[in-house]
Amino acid sequence: MLGVTKAAGIATAWDRYKAQQPQCGFGSTGLCCRICLQGPCRIDPFGNGPQYGVCGADRDTIVARHLVRMMAAGTAAHSEHGRHIALALLHVGEHKLHDYAVHDDEKLHAVAARLGVATEGREQSDIIHELAEVTLGDYQNQDYDKPCHWISSSLPAPRLKKLSDLGLLPHNIDAMVAQSMSRTHMGCDAEPENLILGGLRVALADLNGEMLATELSDVLFGTPKPVASVANLGVLKRNAVNVAVNGHNPLLSEIICNVAADLHDEAVAAGAPEGINIVGVCCTGNELMMRHGVPLATNYLSQELPIATGALEAMIVDVQCVMPSLPRIAACFHTKIITTDNQNKITGATHIEFEEERASEIARQILRVAIDNFKRRDPKRIDIPDEKQEAIVGFSTEGIVAALATVDAADPLKPMVDNIVSGAIQGVVLFAGCNNAKIQQDHNYLTMAKSLAKRNVLVVATGCASGAFAKGGMMTSAATDQYCGEGLRGVLTAIGEAAGLGGPLPPVLHMGACVDNSRAVALVTALANKLGVDISDLPVVASAPEAMSEKAMAIGTWSVAIGLPTHLGTVPPVVGSDVVTGLITDAAKAQLGGYFIVEPDPEKAADSLFDAIQERRAGLGLSTAPRRPALSPTYRFAPSRPAPALLPS
Amino acid sequence: MLGVTKAAGIATAWDRYKAQQPQCGFGSTGLCCRICLQGPCRIDPFGNGPQYGVCGADRDTIVARHLVRMMAAGTAAHSEHGRHIALALLHVGEHKLHDYAVHDDEKLHAVAARLGVATEGREQSDIIHELAEVTLGDYQNQDYDKPCHWISSSLPAPRLKKLSDLGLLPHNIDAMVAQSMSRTHMGCDAEPENLILGGLRVALADLNGEMLATELSDVLFGTPKPVASVANLGVLKRNAVNVAVNGHNPLLSEIICNVAADLHDEAVAAGAPEGINIVGVCCTGNELMMRHGVPLATNYLSQELPIATGALEAMIVDVQCVMPSLPRIAACFHTKIITTDNQNKITGATHIEFEEERASEIARQILRVAIDNFKRRDPKRIDIPDEKQEAIVGFSTEGIVAALATVDAADPLKPMVDNIVSGAIQGVVLFAGCNNAKIQQDHNYLTMAKSLAKRNVLVVATGCASGAFAKGGMMTSAATDQYCGEGLRGVLTAIGEAAGLGGPLPPVLHMGACVDNSRAVALVTALANKLGVDISDLPVVASAPEAMSEKAMAIGTWSVAIGLPTHLGTVPPVVGSDVVTGLITDAAKAQLGGYFIVEPDPEKAADSLFDAIQERRAGLGLSTAPRRPALSPTYRFAPSRPAPALLPS
Repeated sequence: MLGVTKAAGIATAWDRYKAQQPQCGFGSTGLCCRICLQGPCRIDPFGNGPQYGVCGADRDTIVARHLVRMMAAGTAAHSEHGRHIALALLHVGEHKLHDYAVHDDEKLHAVAARLGVATEGREQSDIIHELAEVTLGDYQNQDYDKPCHWISSSLPAPRLKKLSDLGLLPHNIDAMVAQSMSRTHMGCDAEPENLILGGLRVALADLNGEMLATELSDVLFGTPKPVASVANLGVLKRNAVNVAVNGHNPLLSEIICNVAADLHDEAVAAGAPEGINIVGVCCTGNELMMRHGVPLATNYLSQELPIATGALEAMIVDVQCVMPSLPRIAACFHTKIITTDNQNKITGATHIEFEEERASEIARQILRVAIDNFKRRDPKRIDIPDEKQEAIVGFSTEGIVAALATVDAADPLKPMVDNIVSGAIQGVVLFAGCNNAKIQQDHNYLTMAKSLAKRNVLVVATGCASGAFAKGGMMTSAATDQYCGEGLRGVLTAIGEAAGLGGPLPPVLHMGACVDNSRAVALVTALANKLGVDISDLPVVASAPEAMSEKAMAIGTWSVAIGLPTHLGTVPPVVGSDVVTGLITDAAKAQLGGYFIVEPDPEKAADSLFDAIQERRAGLGLSTAPRRPALSPTYRFAPSRPAPALLPS
Repeated sequence: MLGVTKAAGIATAWDRYKAQQPQCGFGSTGLCCRICLQGPCRIDPFGNGPQYGVCGADRDTIVARHLVRMMAAGTAAHSEHGRHIALALLHVGEHKLHDYAVHDDEKLHAVAARLGVATEGREQSDIIHELAEVTLGDYQNQDYDKPCHWISSSLPAPRLKKLSDLGLLPHNIDAMVAQSMSRTHMGCDAEPENLILGGLRVALADLNGEMLATELSDVLFGTPKPVASVANLGVLKRNAVNVAVNGHNPLLSEIICNVAADLHDEAVAAGAPEGINIVGVCCTGNELMMRHGVPLATNYLSQELPIATGALEAMIVDVQCVMPSLPRIAACFHTKIITTDNQNKITGATHIEFEEERASEIARQILRVAIDNFKRRDPKRIDIPDEKQEAIVGFSTEGIVAALATVDAADPLKPMVDNIVSGAIQGVVLFAGCNNAKIQQDHNYLTMAKSLAKRNVLVVATGCASGAFAKGGMMTSAATDQYCGEGLRGVLTAIGEAAGLGGPLPPVLHMGACVDNSRAVALVTALANKLGVDISDLPVVASAPEAMSEKAMAIGTWSVAIGLPTHLGTVPPVVGSDVVTGLITDAAKAQLGGYFIVEPDPEKAADSLFDAIQERRAGLGLSTAPRRPALSPTYRFAPSRPAPALLPS
């Protein structure tokens, strides 16, 4: 498709990235501060120029403040998504929304039990109303010492104790965001250790927001279970009204799917014999793919390209990671870009405001814009690549446990634990995060997953990682045979056959959208509880090899906080401060068990993660593969002061 | 004192500012984006280089997002301060804090009545408990359509209606901060109009936070009334243990003042015959100065200099605008820097954590550190400048009304209104905001105030403006004779004599700390209600001629939102976008009445504000002075697209 855009003289993300070179070294290293109007201030990384901002902030303060703000912004984004779902649930409980209902009563009861909401003999609407109120309490509580309900009912006991002892359990999501912004204001918190502790706490509020967003979405729309789907641009259809949904929140896209069938005849009448073809982009795409098998056109970085097929009637966008370039690209074709959220508009797009109270009506209105637009297609410009990849998706924690239960119904986790103990499975890696124009799209995901699967590491994936693996053919039975080491292949084959898949489970299990990283937390919590250890003892690691968004920074940080070695394949703006890099690597490891590994090279990164898994296996007294030399962070300037610790020992 | 620091080889804020030259042009114009890890991205302001970030964001989106984040951070800072006070009040109501009590029962009843809290026949502790709960509700409410209690019980009805019609009334302070961070996340809100509307809403949440912080502080610590004080470095005493309190929050500093007398003998025993001398710096200083007449050593920009006198035993800091350089400067002298807030630490400072439950005990502990430190003074290095300026301070809205009531007890506002109508007072200007190293300290304040007072404009001041005017001799009766035009002088003299001051009121009325800008809102609301007009009709303007902090950006923005022409003497990072500059100037004026005037030259700025006053006078059919040509914003690049409007007309 890049040939098409190039021929048409249309700049895409890759062209814009090229035009931005060289990028500012101060910003890249975190040594630029724009927090007050005395700036911008810049610290000379090499010590020849200024070492302090006008206010007196040094490199460590400047880097730490900016990093905390990134975490706060990521937390805000996820938890706005979560609040939106929680408010919808509240209103369903108040019988105000007629286009939504509980689709998973079993999950509702499980979640209610976990949060202490009584269910016995109560109307479903009462249960969900109280559940929504308890959830919204996590945005309201003013008692700093009373942690949020979701996180404190989720993590293993030893991890909760550790986080509580370090003062890291968040009490209120919104308040944590506000406090993060306040403490990073000019003239406030200047101690990098204290700032990073604040960052860890706000990032754990992000985890809380993700948990509630995921679990309540399951209550409303159903908990995913394995389903067959397809991915890549070939999912667009020449003879259908093609409608892409892009963004993150399922509240609208679920309804779009619901009403699309009603409008089939209108689409046919408009000249599209195959009716309406809904496809996903980015994480709204993942939400629909894993719940309903809706095809995924692509993930973040190439979201402009479906437009360039000339066959996309409309792209409906909600929130987050939506390129503001879309209307400019669409103006070169016939595609309509439709924004739907009143806090997420784009100049040049058509805005049709979504309201849950009129969800179906608005969804139909939007789809009719697409149907009407079909006639504006230019048949000569239609160019749909013949790229389409099958994928088995929908491995929620419940989906994974259900698959395992076909092997041992009485004790579903036993086969997994036994195989980890035996070494047939060396460990588990969670791939999460984004695409980033600095990296060839999906390359790091595919390289690392293949490298680790070969070494018998089970891969689970969310967000744009899921998109990468779906498109890249890593969510098929065939991929297990092709890429997995012997031990892992045997396990996946046994489970796949027991589960009646007629072949092995894929080497990469699609756990959902990026907000669904909380599913991975549920899985590792179950494993830790089963083994009677902390998460930081497990041979489990995480990786965001193409990290891009502030959400990814928040996710990576809580991943460290819950005890996981966490790889970033892009370099966050921290390398200007040896103190901050020390805090999020060595000091974090010493006090939390989890820590960041920054390594842009995917092969080296896979080695580092495998080493981290071996270190954990050794700690549990399990068999280990040969180790390489000890890890050391890739990026460091000379130390500016003695190695810091998060808290005095 | 700069001679002292220079001789000692100590770099101060001015040296650091010099070292930062030249500052980055991309950051200065707002054309730098660091919101995701694909960046940093920079837009070429002249159109020769890249016009889009990697994600596709254009100059307008990038500038607007960054601006909204500044507003959100300012709002967060003020409202954390407010939350701290509200929680303290709650705990006083729960009989948990024994070192605090209600010091202004009349104010308590006034505030309770305003917020609909019943008082009749109730225990005081019940009233304050409910008042605190209602206040904390402004951090908790999840109903987007139900505005915050404080703001909706404060502004004039026509202003509330206008803000409500535009969707600008905030419903929840924390949620507004979180939503601002969320909508400015990569791939979210990209439309500058929509972003600025969000910025206005979060800034109005800042006003709400300031209101509750100020009013509840008055309940706890007393509402200021006129009191004599002194300002400038000469307030330090050679024969006393000198203790400076620096920051913003009165919760600790009030207790420090309370217990200082108890430790008098210990200070004398340590060799300081005059005991303990508490002095203020920045807005903690303003809080104490206006409630108790405690001397003010200095305001923001020169906060490092009291240390260089060699006579400061301790500087106790709480939150906001505290230079992280203080411990480095203090290390060259004997001064101890003591941080007290667990979210505001500084590397190199002594941290003594403040807890309201043990307030007096901790205050004594801190003062004993200072007393103990007296012996480490080097007498040879003591160099206290003989600069000391008397000042009459403490003009809360209630203080001003009480002074006016001496002229007309039945209708206190009548003398003010009559004199505005007659033209003896042309209008009112609120000076607020900070110092900024880009401007000779206090210069813009003094230049502008003198220029406007001469033209019979009454000046009220808060925050570092107050500090500038106190030090600059503008808070004395003599200054009225020296600087005011005939009409204003006559009015101030009449009131001052009626009030028994033995001379005129000063030309600049000290309304408090920067959080107390809400006092000015109460004053203009009273004037608007008295005249039966909106705030945007009044001949009242605002100015932050040395604006520096994100709080100032939040304040300036709500000042525009409530209808005031609002001057900034430093250039915010918006000039890279003609669309954004148009939105906060022309479009704001058309739709809100208030608008920004950006003008670094203080003489020209005074002219612009006087013109704005004349425009308002003409609108009310009052006599006007001769006008200059129409206003136009000082800074503009070439328009990038047609002039925007906040909302479609």
